Order: sequence, then structure tokens, then C-alpha cells
Amino acid sequence: MATKANSVAHPTLIEVDPFVPADQQKGIHNRWHPDIPAFVTVKPGEVFKIQCVDWTGAQIGNNDFADDMRDVDLTKIHNLSGPVAVEGAEPGDCLVVDILDVTPFEKMPWGYTGIFELTNGGGLFAREFNSKAAKAIWDFEGVYATSRHIPGVRFAGVSHPGLIGTAPSAELLATWNKREGDLIAAHANAVPPVALPPLAQGAYIGQELPDDVRAKIYAEGARTVPGREHGGNCDIKNLSKGSRCYFPVFVKGANLSVGDLHFSQGDGEISFCGAIEMAGIITFKTSIIKNGVEKFALKQPLFLPSPVDPLYSAKLIFEGISVDYHGDGKQYNMDATVAYKQAALNAIAYLMKLGYTREQAYLLLSAAPVESHVGAIVDSPNACVTLALPLGIFDHDILPKEEGLTKKEFGQCAIRSDGVV
Amino acid sequence: MATKANSVAHPTLIEVDPFVPADQQKGIHNRWHPDIPAFVTVKPGEVFKIQCVDWTGAQIGNNDFADDMRDVDLTKIHNLSGPVAVEGAEPGDCLVVDILDVTPFEKMPWGYTGIFELTNGGGLFAREFNSKAAKAIWDFEGVYATSRHIPGVRFAGVSHPGLIGTAPSAELLATWNKREGDLIAAHANAVPPVALPPLAQGAYIGQELPDDVRAKIYAEGARTVPGREHGGNCDIKNLSKGSRCYFPVFVKGANLSVGDLHFSQGDGEISFCGAIEMAGIITFKTSIIKNGVEKFALKQPLFLPSPVDPLYSAKLIFEGISVDYHGDGKQYNMDATVAYKQAALNAIAYLMKLGYTREQAYLLLSAAPVESHVGAIVDSPNACVTLALPLGIFDHDILPKEEGLTKKEFGQCAIRSDGVV
Amino acid sequence: MATKANSVAHPTLIEVDPFVPADQQKGIHNRWHPDIPAFVTVKPGEVFKIQCVDWTGAQIGNNDFADDMRDVDLTKIHNLSGPVAVEGAEPGDCLVVDILDVTPFEKMPWGYTGIFELTNGGGLFAREFNSKAAKAIWDFEGVYATSRHIPGVRFAGVSHPGLIGTAPSAELLATWNKREGDLIAAHANAVPPVALPPLAQGAYIGQELPDDVRAKIYAEGARTVPGREHGGNCDIKNLSKGSRCYFPVFVKGANLSVGDLHFSQGDGEISFCGAIEMAGIITFKTSIIKNGVEKFALKQPLFLPSPVDPLYSAKLIFEGISVDYHGDGKQYNMDATVAYKQAALNAIAYLMKLGYTREQAYLLLSAAPVESHVGAIVDSPNACVTLALPLGIFDHDILPKEEGLTKKEFGQCAIRSDGVV
Amino acid sequence: MATKANSVAHPTLIEVDPFVPADQQKGIHNRWHPDIPAFVTVKPGEVFKIQCVDWTGAQIGNNDFADDMRDVDLTKIHNLSGPVAVEGAEPGDCLVVDILDVTPFEKMPWGYTGIFELTNGGGLFAREFNSKAAKAIWDFEGVYATSRHIPGVRFAGVSHPGLIGTAPSAELLATWNKREGDLIAAHANAVPPVALPPLAQGAYIGQELPDDVRAKIYAEGARTVPGREHGGNCDIKNLSKGSRCYFPVFVKGANLSVGDLHFSQGDGEISFCGAIEMAGIITFKTSIIKNGVEKFALKQPLFLPSPVDPLYSAKLIFEGISVDYHGDGKQYNMDATVAYKQAALNAIAYLMKLGYTREQAYLLLSAAPVESHVGAIVDSPNACVTLALPLGIFDHDILPKEEGLTKKEFGQCAIRSDGVV
Repeated sequence: MATKANSVAHPTLIEVDPFVPADQQKGIHNRWHPDIPAFVTVKPGEVFKIQCVDWTGAQIGNNDFADDMRDVDLTKIHNLSGPVAVEGAEPGDCLVVDILDVTPFEKMPWGYTGIFELTNGGGLFAREFNSKAAKAIWDFEGVYATSRHIPGVRFAGVSHPGLIGTAPSAELLATWNKREGDLIAAHANAVPPVALPPLAQGAYIGQELPDDVRAKIYAEGARTVPGREHGGNCDIKNLSKGSRCYFPVFVKGANLSVGDLHFSQGDGEISFCGAIEMAGIITFKTSIIKNGVEKFALKQPLFLPSPVDPLYSAKLIFEGISVDYHGDGKQYNMDATVAYKQAALNAIAYLMKLGYTREQAYLLLSAAPVESHVGAIVDSPNACVTLALPLGIFDHDILPKEEGLTKKEFGQCAIRSDGVV
Repeated sequence: MATKANSVAHPTLIEVDPFVPADQQKGIHNRWHPDIPAFVTVKPGEVFKIQCVDWTGAQIGNNDFADDMRDVDLTKIHNLSGPVAVEGAEPGDCLVVDILDVTPFEKMPWGYTGIFELTNGGGLFAREFNSKAAKAIWDFEGVYATSRHIPGVRFAGVSHPGLIGTAPSAELLATWNKREGDLIAAHANAVPPVALPPLAQGAYIGQELPDDVRAKIYAEGARTVPGREHGGNCDIKNLSKGSRCYFPVFVKGANLSVGDLHFSQGDGEISFCGAIEMAGIITFKTSIIKNGVEKFALKQPLFLPSPVDPLYSAKLIFEGISVDYHGDGKQYNMDATVAYKQAALNAIAYLMKLGYTREQAYLLLSAAPVESHVGAIVDSPNACVTLALPLGIFDHDILPKEEGLTKKEFGQCAIRSDGVV
Repeated sequence: MATKANSVAHPTLIEVDPFVPADQQKGIHNRWHPDIPAFVTVKPGEVFKIQCVDWTGAQIGNNDFADDMRDVDLTKIHNLSGPVAVEGAEPGDCLVVDILDVTPFEKMPWGYTGIFELTNGGGLFAREFNSKAAKAIWDFEGVYATSRHIPGVRFAGVSHPGLIGTAPSAELLATWNKREGDLIAAHANAVPPVALPPLAQGAYIGQELPDDVRAKIYAEGARTVPGREHGGNCDIKNLSKGSRCYFPVFVKGANLSVGDLHFSQGDGEISFCGAIEMAGIITFKTSIIKNGVEKFALKQPLFLPSPVDPLYSAKLIFEGISVDYHGDGKQYNMDATVAYKQAALNAIAYLMKLGYTREQAYLLLSAAPVESHVGAIVDSPNACVTLALPLGIFDHDILPKEEGLTKKEFGQCAIRSDGVV
Repeated sequence: MATKANSVAHPTLIEVDPFVPADQQKGIHNRWHPDIPAFVTVKPGEVFKIQCVDWTGAQIGNNDFADDMRDVDLTKIHNLSGPVAVEGAEPGDCLVVDILDVTPFEKMPWGYTGIFELTNGGGLFAREFNSKAAKAIWDFEGVYATSRHIPGVRFAGVSHPGLIGTAPSAELLATWNKREGDLIAAHANAVPPVALPPLAQGAYIGQELPDDVRAKIYAEGARTVPGREHGGNCDIKNLSKGSRCYFPVFVKGANLSVGDLHFSQGDGEISFCGAIEMAGIITFKTSIIKNGVEKFALKQPLFLPSPVDPLYSAKLIFEGISVDYHGDGKQYNMDATVAYKQAALNAIAYLMKLGYTREQAYLLLSAAPVESHVGAIVDSPNACVTLALPLGIFDHDILPKEEGLTKKEFGQCAIRSDGVV
């Protein structure tokens, strides 16, 4: 018969408390550096679980004001659980990672999507909107999320880690710091900044280390915002539970770290804190393909998507081209980012016709399983990008109608307590 | 009983010959201008067919050399059938266009995908590859395409018009010419050029017009390469047969034109002549929503995708970020175009491990139903873009394997008769 | 350049006229018999087209009465184009057939779905409904069908041959006639009959044959209504354009025949003349796998479905069990047919709440891309079968609402001119 | 910030121990009867969790012999957690149930699929195979299941309750007992029996009740094997997490009960213990539509399927007709059950060519996300049913190949310790 003895749970190798600041916990780091030792070690083939705090480390509360979003300490973000060493992995190998599951903590069935202030975090439209802090709290009801701050929608999560990667080698880290330093230098006074250099302030490692090692890591460790060759903060919604990812290995043991779990996210994650951010648990299984970097010409991770991503076949699709026709009308040269922005602004304008505020629309496009395709990227000078809004996430009909769109009242998302938007 | 009398075919309103140069035919134009009169007029609700030559107007042959691709006359491209006026459409309205079907001519069951020379047409990797002309001929076998120049693949077409749009108003045309003129001025000696100004050479209208009108159109008419606010050459693969598109109307009658039919295309259409280009027939039905531009905040077309687009659920996905790690390693600032290129270069490198030549891989990514998503576009400084290769289009297993990839012999695509690649 | 010379259409090997009775045309037969000679012969690898009349051979007209449906001559149905011999095929081989395309004639852009009289043809609910003739005419608009007789719906076709199969051997034919004869004997007076024995009346072969051969074929030839081991009238909607089918071969040359083309059909094809019946053109390519029957344990065809079948992910699903709770409440023993019927009757009752007549609902479930799954077939005594209605085919919202369903006015389908329903 | 105070877990209203026999636990019953009082009561709109033992109540162990399967006590199966009363529900209403999640217990990450003996439980092929007990243990790795007893496959679960329904009224219960009693009487000595009458032996209710009430329930309570008008053991794989189900209400409070959780199941669940049976947790939310039975013509539940069911687009499809061509060749009259069986036997024969044993193939078809469609159910005398095997669940290529199928060695599933199969 079924017994405890023949029923062995998959082990949890890193445990965290989602209600405690990340810098006070073991097994959480927030910089990338080859000298951060493995916190745990696994054998290929083992199934194991890793717990993660939310990307801000409990800075955001389940409430109806966005002051916490306004005041978030961005030096302490992207908390990574790990590193996890895999026995036998060596530089040049390919680390195969099965992302078997991604779930919220049972005790914390909610997440959030935020808009940052222009001057503290930004986001895709930080300048266009002169962004002020706002947020939506999402309640997790099984496979679905809903929000009291964005009524009229419910969607299934395409849950994934926003941030997952192997540790860089010293050489790779140097490359990153050099090239990003050059970019920063070229845009010295940008607001928000174009990139972030290494910074000791707010850094932590989650384990005891000699002071000199710690100091070196703090001084050189790459910041966590951008995705890079090792994976990192790629924020790819389809790297979801059920997917299989092939990572290049740069250090002995591979030293995989993971964090920034998302219950859901739209392609683009446009508000930056744009996914449904959550604390939770990720289940992994790994294997190693020797010399995989060479075998697969692996300059960045490959992956096989999951068969259980939400399927919403009916969509309303917005187009954008690389002309800033929502702004000053400037013609850009084959710039897919500008094209993406126009498509998103078209969608926001449409959602506002339906009665959503600009902030709600911005948050919704960030968090819902919106799909953005690069349509064409060769028709000079205009790249064309599309953004597809799934119809099935709305409990009301949003299709274009001869009589126009019905404007409903959806209130507003959580904003600052001083009422500034 | 079924009789001829009770069986009425949908009328073909514009007939063309796919084997005759486009400038010798009626009903074909290759510039955008408000003064090009409607060639035919339809009532809302009518189902009708429009025939189109291929985008080059029969310049490319079904053979095994790419000399025709090398020598293509790019002043005579993007041949548009039309304009089609819709009774009752006025500026500010929304023209609803059902793209009911897109098929090749029965007498011409083939198409082509081409790589242009760096100095004559270019393409996404024209500079990186110092491109020389190459092409693949695709045979249409019902819903599928195969190519003797790219063995081992077969895929269902997501057939669509690369180019479809309403006529611009004089004001909109002036805006286009101004902003693109500014861009050209700012990149005076670019190869390939960043954009193309109006040009009388190679222009035609497909109908009799007074000389002064013709001269005005030639002098001012917008070139057809980029997509713009009216639609145009958006090259969106999912604007396919079965989709419904909502266009803004800028002139009385809307004056819809269409051309550049594609049997299939990958997101991005990277080689520029990258779709499976074909001559063929498009079936339309239209309706008008009065004042639709205001009703739907319509700055560019919206559309509902088709339920019959090919479904290949299993995919291998490549990532790219806005660092030119296939080139000089430069860090770009949130540039989705650069990220797209890295993802595509990763895919090309992978395909070459399987035995395809670089040219074959480039053509295949252009033509097959590849999907490219904008993963994240806020993680400064790196945009992240993915490119998904459907596994089901290959008749061999392309998945990463522990033993590596099996390199097969696939020959080469059609290249120049002088053998230069 | 593109020329006629380098553009060769796929040949049409059997041409028919959809407006002429089938028994007056060459290449059409309506019985299965090994002695019907091949009408044409193809080589493996050739792409070719076969034209087909509609399954009744032009008996049904595009009009607004169902008298033709009432009076249909059922001895002259299921007209098959063929046989097509494939060079090299021998008994025991597997004939691989690519169904590359299935389209209506351009000159006949319509089809029909019919309900037969109880006493002339029947249908799944012939007895329950005491069926009188009715029909819906469907207009083909590219990939879509709509009907003036069933307003409020539009759907993409999953076009396929209802009837396709290889010729039986003499032994197989004898087996069929024996087993079906036994069934008929056991249900001597059933209305409608449970099966149909060979019948010379109404039989034809479509080619010149010696009288004795013809007489033998007429006397023994299997009727075309049921699907059998060779394929035949399986009416599987997913054996659609783009699918690949593996048939067992029973006679030299395989002798493939095809007919009863459907623009669309729901799982079950419940009204019997339940698909959208059309005349049209099917495009094939074949190959042979020697000894495939043994290699694949092939007692009946296998197939790979098409990537281009319509995708409607949102559905409303009805359940049925093997209790006739719409009738006398009788408990059946694990009978999936009874369960299917209850699910369909539940759907009909629901559609009637929306305002459709029973006849419209019956026709719609027959013709639209409805999916019926066998849920469970082991929970004695009740089989459970589901029937899924795609939401995306309706232009109005059919979901259950707190306020109930909105009953609209949809008129009625075409009925008999005497008004009897 | 995120705190315990602002993070409230969804309450678990019924807790069970998956390692303790069901008849020793509170809140578990195994008969349907209107007099079983609600065990818990919820308000509409609440999200809550219910724990369930596996359907046998811990009788089956995680080991490599099938003796427990052979000896299973079938009077103690289909353990139901509940009843759950919903405030305000009354007979004639519709109870809307959101199945928000279905997961295994973290401490019991495995399940099983079994074949019963012919004389103890049976199954679809119990007689054909003269079934002896066998089983496969499945390990849950996040969204996937794999089995050491059926190597070479891995698939995502379409997790659902096999058994869910509202309580019957006294009238409905009487109807069930009458009609099933009649069937039993008509098949008095069938092995396995065609249905099961009420039976006091093995019955339990999970709560304290007066003896006379208990005796009445034991004497009259409907057995749990078949699905019925209230839902019940429908074993519909797509009634999965993320689906919304509309149940008719027959008693005050509706009194919903649930059990027999399945990690995965194929359409048909052919081996009877054919799903991947598991103990686990189901998350619900309910609402009430007054008078919904009338509003929606609700004779049996309706449902909206989930957007997160696994998507495997590539399939190999087997056909079956209502002729027992795997057995005595008998012709049946439009019997979809016989047709289903032929399709399944064709699939089993194919899988055996690949090297799986008959028992492995039988278990795999039962447990994997196989889809079975009713192709046609009107082509007298042959119903046609298809069974689709998803290609993506295999780690090896199972497609038909010119060279035939490669037979591998996959061992055997768990069988009886005496070696009898």
C-alpha cells in the first residue's frame, strides 16, 4: 500500500522566508561573480527544489498604495537563490536544466506588477509617461491570476524564472564590465541610467566568505538587470515550467542561480517590474552534455518550450513601426525597440477606450500573456513589431465593433498615497 | 440540382499575367500617392479576387542560378495591384478587410526566397556576410512548400500579402517624405541606403493618366519598402488568409492596394527577399466602420489573426541580446534589432552544425514559419529577443543530443553562375 | 525570369463536371470491387489532382427549399473518382498518401448540409426527430463558410475527403458482404436499414467494361456508406488537407479512389449528410512502403494530421453518458453511441435556448468543427462522451451567463416546400 | 512589505492522510446519497482546498509487483471527499465550479496506472486479454510524469478529478437504482458485471450519523463507478485544472463531492484503473446561477476547458470501426465502443512493434494524453473512432518509416509476483 516509506518528497535544497529581507538570509546573492562559491551541490539526474524570495526581497506589500513601489531600494533586487553546483560540469560543457515546476508559496498566494518612478527604476515608457509609482496586486487562484486593481481580466500563468543563469568566468565577467562600462561612459547622465556598474552598496552573497573575497565580489560583481550570454535576467516568459534549457558552462560546477520568479509576464515585460512578481519554489533536474558549447555552437542558452503554456488562440493584434508616431514623429532606422513601443502604445490607447486607465493598461500589458512578434526587420527604414492581446483573458468583449467600443468603469490601480500619477 | 446558374464564382477584379513584366500591365502600380485613381470600385460586403504578380514582376526564374537575384532591378519592385476603392469609405473611417484567401496561380506552383547582394538590396546580414546573391526555389504542393535547394524540410504555408495598405492622404505622404528624407540626410552614404526617396525611374501606375498627374505621382510617390501608418509593406506573416484587418482610411474610397504575396515567411523576413515570394490571387471582402479611427484609436492597422495558421507546437528556441557577440562584441543600448540578429545568428550557427550552408540557413530562417518574440525590452541595457525554429518542419531530428548533432550533406542553394558566395 | 516554360501546373488526372449527373461521367464509380480497373496510373512521387463531384452527383441545388434533399436518390451516392493505380504497389504494401490540398471548384463556391427523411437516408436522430428533409446552403468565402440558413456563425473549413480508400481484394470484399449480410439478416425490417447489401440499381463504374465484368461488379460490389479496413467512408474530419495517410494495399496498384469532399465537418457528422458537402479538387502525392502492412501492424489506415487544421481554443463542452435521458431513460451497457447522442442532444437543447431551431442546431453540429471525445469507456455501465462547441465560430457570445442565455431570432434553415418539418 | 499578515493561504477545508485507509478518515464517503450531510459549508466566491486520498484509499504501493492490484478491494474505491455545501444553492440551480488547481501531495510525488484481473475489476480489454494484474508506477517531476515501468516516455499531466459531482435527490437516486438494476437483471451472470447495485459492504460516510440514516444510505446509496447526470465518475481528462464546470443542483446546498484525482489520463481511460491515479489536493471556487438548470437546459454538466492543458500538436492517429476485426470479425451496428476498441488495439499492436509489451502499451494508452475522437457515427453500420498518440511524449521517433519500426527493449511493467501475465 501507499506509505510514507515509499513516498519520498523531492528535497528542498535552499529554503528562504519570503517575509524576511533577502540580505538577512542564507543562500541568496545579488551579484554575478565566479568567486561566489556553490551554496549547494547536486548530482545530474536529481530532482530538487529551490525556494526564492520575490525579486525585491519582500519590499512590496499586499496593499492598495504604491508608496513601497516608489521607494524600492534598487540596489537590493534580483535576489538569486544559489549557486547550485552540478557535479561533473566543466567549462565548455552544456548544462541541461529541466524547469519542472514554478509555483508560489502556498502561504503567499499573491504577487504584484509595478510601475517605477522615472527617477527610481524607470520602465519602457518612464520618460513618455513621466512615470510615477503604481502597482497592481494579483491574487493567485490555482492556475489563474486576478487583480482587484485591474478588474475584468483573469488569465492562466505562464510561470517562469525571470532570472536564471550559470556563473560567469572571470574572463566573461571582465568582458561584461568592460562593454557595459563603455556604454555607461557614452551616456553619462541618462535618466534612467542606460546600465549599472558594479556597486558594493546593497550587495550580498548569502554565505560566509573571507573579507577579501567578499570585497572582490562586491567590487567586480556584475549587476543583475540585463540578460547576458549565461542567461541571467532574460525575462523570457516561455522559459516556463515544463521547458528544458541548455546553458553554456563557464566555471567548474556550472554554479546555477535562479530568482525573480514570475507567475506570468507579457512579452516585453514593459513596465520593468512588469511581470507578476512572486516569491516561490522552482523544481529542477539537471544533466550535463560534455563539450556542449562546441557541439551546439552555444553562445547563449537554447531552450525547448513547455507543452503547458496557456493557449489563447483568439487575439487582437496591434502593429508598430520604427517611427515615433505617438511622440515627436521621428523616423528611426530599423529600430525594433521603437516599433515595439508604438505597438504597445497603440494597445494602451485601445485599452483606454475600453475604460482602463493608462496605468492599468501599462500594467496589464506587462503582466498578461501578451505576445510580441518581430514582424519584419528588413524593410528599411521601418522595423515592424506586433503585440497580440489574447481575447480570452477578458470577461468582456473587447473586439472592434461597428458601434465603437463600450467604455466601462474599472477604477484605478494602486497609486501613491499622495494621489500623484 | 447543382447548376452553373446557381453557382456564381467570385469575380476577379484585377487580372494580371505573372509571366509579363509588371510595368507592361494594367492595374499595377509601385508607388504610394493619393492621386493614383481607384482602378476598380467595390461595394462593402462583396467577395472579390485580385491577382498579383510576384513582388519583382517576373524578374526571378525557376532555375538553379542566382544571377537574376544579383541583377534584380529594385526600382521596379513591390508591385501593387489596385487601388481598389470601397464605396462609402471616407477619411477617418476604418476599412475592415477580410483576407479570405491567398493562393498561388495554379499555373505557377512555385516561389522563391532570395539573398541580395550587399550593393543591390542588402538584407539583415548583408554587411556581416558581405552578401552575394543566392536563392532557393520552393515548390508548392498543396498546403506545403519544399525546396530542392534546401533539402530536409517541408512546411505548411502561412500565406499572406507582404504588402497591403490604404492610400495616404497628401498630408500623410508629406509626413513620410519629410521624416524619411531627414533620415536619409543623416546617413548620406550608407550601403545599403537607410531609406529610399521618391524616384521617377522605374515608377508606373498601371493606368492612363494625364502627364502632369503622372509626373506629380512620380516625383512625390512614396517608395514601397517600409510599412507605415496605412499598413504597407509590414511583412507580418500572421496577416494571413483568414485574418481580419482594420485599416485607417485617409482618402475617399480608402483605395486599398495589395501585392508582394508570400506563400510563407518567418518572423523578421531576414534576408529581405526572405519570404517565399509568389505571384497569386488574394480574395477579399470589405466593410466600413464610420469614424473608426477615433473609435479604435487607430494609428496603424489592427488585426485578428487566422484560425488556420500552421500549428507546430514543438520548437527549438534561440536567444539573443543587444550585444553583438557574433561580431565585435559591442554593447548596444536596449536595441531589439541587435538582439534579434544575435538570436538569428545563433540559429544559423546551429543549422550549420547540422550540415546546412550559411546561405541555406539564412534562407530557411527567412522563409519558414519561424517565430520571433520580444522576450524583454526593459532590462537595461539588454533587450532579449527569441527565435523559435519549429521542429515539425524538418524530416530529421534536430534536437540537441548528448552525442552532438549529426552533420548531414544538404548541398547548397542556388548561387551565382560564377560560383561566388 | 518567371515564364510559362519554367512553371508547370500539377496535372489533373481525372476531370469531372460538378453540374452533370455522376453516372454520365467518366472516371466516377460508386461501388467497391477489385475488378474495377484503374482509370489512371501514377508514379510514386508525382503530385496530381483529382476532381470530384459532390457526393450526390449534383442532386442538390443552391436554393431555399429542401425538396431535393427529400427526394435524393440514395443508390447514386458517394461518387468516387478513380481508381488511381500507383506503380509498384502490391498487396501487403502500405500506400502513403499525402492529401496536399482539398478545395472547392472556383466556379462552384458553395456546398450544403442536409437532413434526410427518416424513410430516405435517416441520420443519427432520424427516429428521435422523425426527420423531415431540411438543408443549409453554405457559401465559401476563402477559408471560411457562412450560411444564410444558419445566421450568426462563420468558421474555417477543415477540408477533407469523406471517402478515400484502396480497392479491396476479392477475399476482403467477400468478408464485408458476409458480415454485413449477417447484420442485415438480424435486423430485417429496420428503418432506416442497418446496412445496405450490394445492389445493381444505381451502380456505375465510369469506364467501359465487358458486360460480364460489369455484372459481377454490380452484383458483388460493396456499397459505399460505411468506412472499412481499407479506409472508405470514414468521414474523419482531421484526414484533412495537409495530412499524410498510410493505407493498406489489397490489390496490385492499390487502386485508390476518392470522393465525398467536405469543406468542413464536425466529429460525428451527425445528420449523415452532415458535412458541408462539396464538389471540388483534391491534390495528392503518393509513395509506397513495401510490406508496410506487416511493418506497421496495419489493419486499418494510420494518419498524421495536418498542421493547418483550424484552431479554436475556447470551447463549450457538453457531456453525455450511455443513458437515454433525452428519451425513455433507458440504461445502456457501456454504449458510446448512446453517450454521443446525449451529448449532442444537450448541445442542441442549448443552441435552441439561443434561438436556433432544432433543425439549424442539428445541421450546425454536423457541419461546424465540433470535436467529440470519448471521455471514458470503462466506467460500467456508462460510457462518457463529450462534444465541444468552438466559441470562436459564433459572432455572438454563447457562454452561460448569470442572467441566462439571450434568445435571438435566427429564422429557419431551408425546409420542404410543403412546410413540413 | 510582504508579510505573513498580508499573505493569507487559501484554507484547506478537508484534510486527509494519503497513507491511511479511507474508511478510517473523516470527510470521505464512497456512495452517492442525498442523506449524506454536508461535511463542510462554503460561501460562493471563496477559494478553498480539498484533500483527497487516491481512489483506492492507499491500497496500492510504490513498488515493482502488481499483487496489490490483483487483490484490491473494490468495495472501497472511489473515495470522495465531501460533501461540500454551497450556501444558497437550491435544486434547479446551476453550481459553477472553478477547478483552479489539482496537484499531488508534495510528500507523495508518485501515482500508478493499473490493469485489473478479469475477475476483479476488469477493464476495456479484460476479456480479450484475459487480464492479469499489472501496473506502472509514475514519478511526478513537476508538470511531468515518467515511469520506470514504461521507459521512453515523458508527458505533461492534464490533471483533473476523475470523480466530481453534486448529490442526487432521492428521486434521481431512485431513477439510477431502477435503471441500473434493470440492466443488471438483464445481464445476470456477466463477468465482469455490467453494473453494481447498492452494497452495504465496504460502504462508509466519513462522519457520525444515526444508525438508521447510515443504514438507509448503505442500502440505497449509488455506487460510484459510472458517471451520471450529476457528473460523478465521468473521467473526462479535460475537466482539468483551469476548467470551469456547470453542475445541476439536486439538493439544498448542492453537496459537491470530489475524488479519484488523476495526474493524467488518456481519452477512454481504457484499463479502468487507467489514469495516473494519485492522492492530492484540489482547489475550488464556486458560484451559483439561480434556476440554471432551466436557463441552460442542463441535463448533465457543461464545462469550459482549461487554457493550460498540454499541447502536443504532432500526432499519429489510429482508426477503428465497429467491426471486431481484432477478434472474431463480427459486424456490429453503429457501435462506437467497438470502434474505439479497434482503434486502441491498432495502437497497441503498433506500440508492440516498437518493443513495448502488450501490458505496457495498454497502460500507456490509458495514462498518456491520448485523444480519441468520434469520427463519424452515421455511416451504417460502421461508427468510426480515432485514437491519437502524441509524438512529443516519446523520447524516440515512433513515426512509420520506409525501413519499418525499430524494435527496442523496454522491459516490462510491474506484474504479479508469481510472474503470471
